[in-house]
Amino acid sequence: MNFPSKLIENAVNEISKLPGIGKKTALRLALHLLKQKESFTEELSSALLALRKEVKYCNTCFNISDQEVCSVCSSPRRDKTIICVVEDIPDVLAIENTSQYNGLYHVLGGVISPIQGVGPDDLKIEALIDRISAKNTQDKVEEVILALPATMEGDTTSFFITRRLKEFGIKVSTIARGIPIGGELEFTDEITLGRSILTRVNYSAD
Amino acid sequence: MNFPSKLIENAVNEISKLPGIGKKTALRLALHLLKQKESFTEELSSALLALRKEVKYCNTCFNISDQEVCSVCSSPRRDKTIICVVEDIPDVLAIENTSQYNGLYHVLGGVISPIQGVGPDDLKIEALIDRISAKNTQDKVEEVILALPATMEGDTTSFFITRRLKEFGIKVSTIARGIPIGGELEFTDEITLGRSILTRVNYSAD
Repeated sequence: MNFPSKLIENAVNEISKLPGIGKKTALRLALHLLKQKESFTEELSSALLALRKEVKYCNTCFNISDQEVCSVCSSPRRDKTIICVVEDIPDVLAIENTSQYNGLYHVLGGVISPIQGVGPDDLKIEALIDRISAKNTQDKVEEVILALPATMEGDTTSFFITRRLKEFGIKVSTIARGIPIGGELEFTDEITLGRSILTRVNYSAD
Repeated sequence: MNFPSKLIENAVNEISKLPGIGKKTALRLALHLLKQKESFTEELSSALLALRKEVKYCNTCFNISDQEVCSVCSSPRRDKTIICVVEDIPDVLAIENTSQYNGLYHVLGGVISPIQGVGPDDLKIEALIDRISAKNTQDKVEEVILALPATMEGDTTSFFITRRLKEFGIKVSTIARGIPIGGELEFTDEITLGRSILTRVNYSAD
């Protein structure tokens, strides 16, 4: 693509470095900025810079935070005996939005993936072990929920963490896999459907 | 969506003001920035700010330009007797990329749309008339090509400009509508197909 101006060429090149944004979308976004007030672009770029420069991570659960300890970890209303282990920050947001979980989190920052060169040491697994083995906490961790993606890498990571946690004798669970609410049986892939039959829930026992 | 940090909330809000970007995509982009070096965000935001603050428009054709007169208008190799009228800047880029056009452009900055409150006076139509009626130019405009969208608004604008240009007795043409190259007849909508039969091109006359 030939651009009539160096300024727009630079802007398009920078925007199209973002994931999922090609040159055409980048051009559309750049031209949109030109049609807005100057303050629009100023607010956008200062928000991005502030995020990148001032972001902090909770030093307990590694979620994004404005403080040294995040609002979940420091809240007196959260159940500190349960830790939900997730791959990354959007997963925390997704679970928080369900309003179904009242425990703490632990953000691994990824999953074990030998192909991408991500080993256990690149993730916050040891920090998780430290949290569980800590002697000085009043609230002893009783359960770890593994909420990792249902992929080979996610399963590998779940397996690795489960084995590492064995010595502590705490409950380790994983979120249920099955047919999504509202999902049609006939359009569900066979692996999910097969698993959902094998891991069926006993109604009569409730 | 509840965010664990004001910084990320601000960034997501600002990013999701861009067209076609929702909260989830905005969050994905914000988290992507956090995983890159700080210089990545700095270069992105300075490119956006530079674009917005320093952008110039050609004072002849109203295309984006680094100079007072854009590279197309100032080029001695372009045919100054033809002006191609387009809706907006991406159309200039699209036509330039075909390498099939060697004339000048005129960017209207929109099309006439009573529903959106855009009238002829909101567009650069008078500036086009001025270019054509200018007595002091050596290169008299001989043809105006209307390359406006094939929508009601585009057609209205084409009709309006055609009528305004009548007094100058110059050739006014419009780009050909029809089946795209590589397009299948059976998947073409009936209006396009119908028009392409009515405006068929005579092979034997060539």
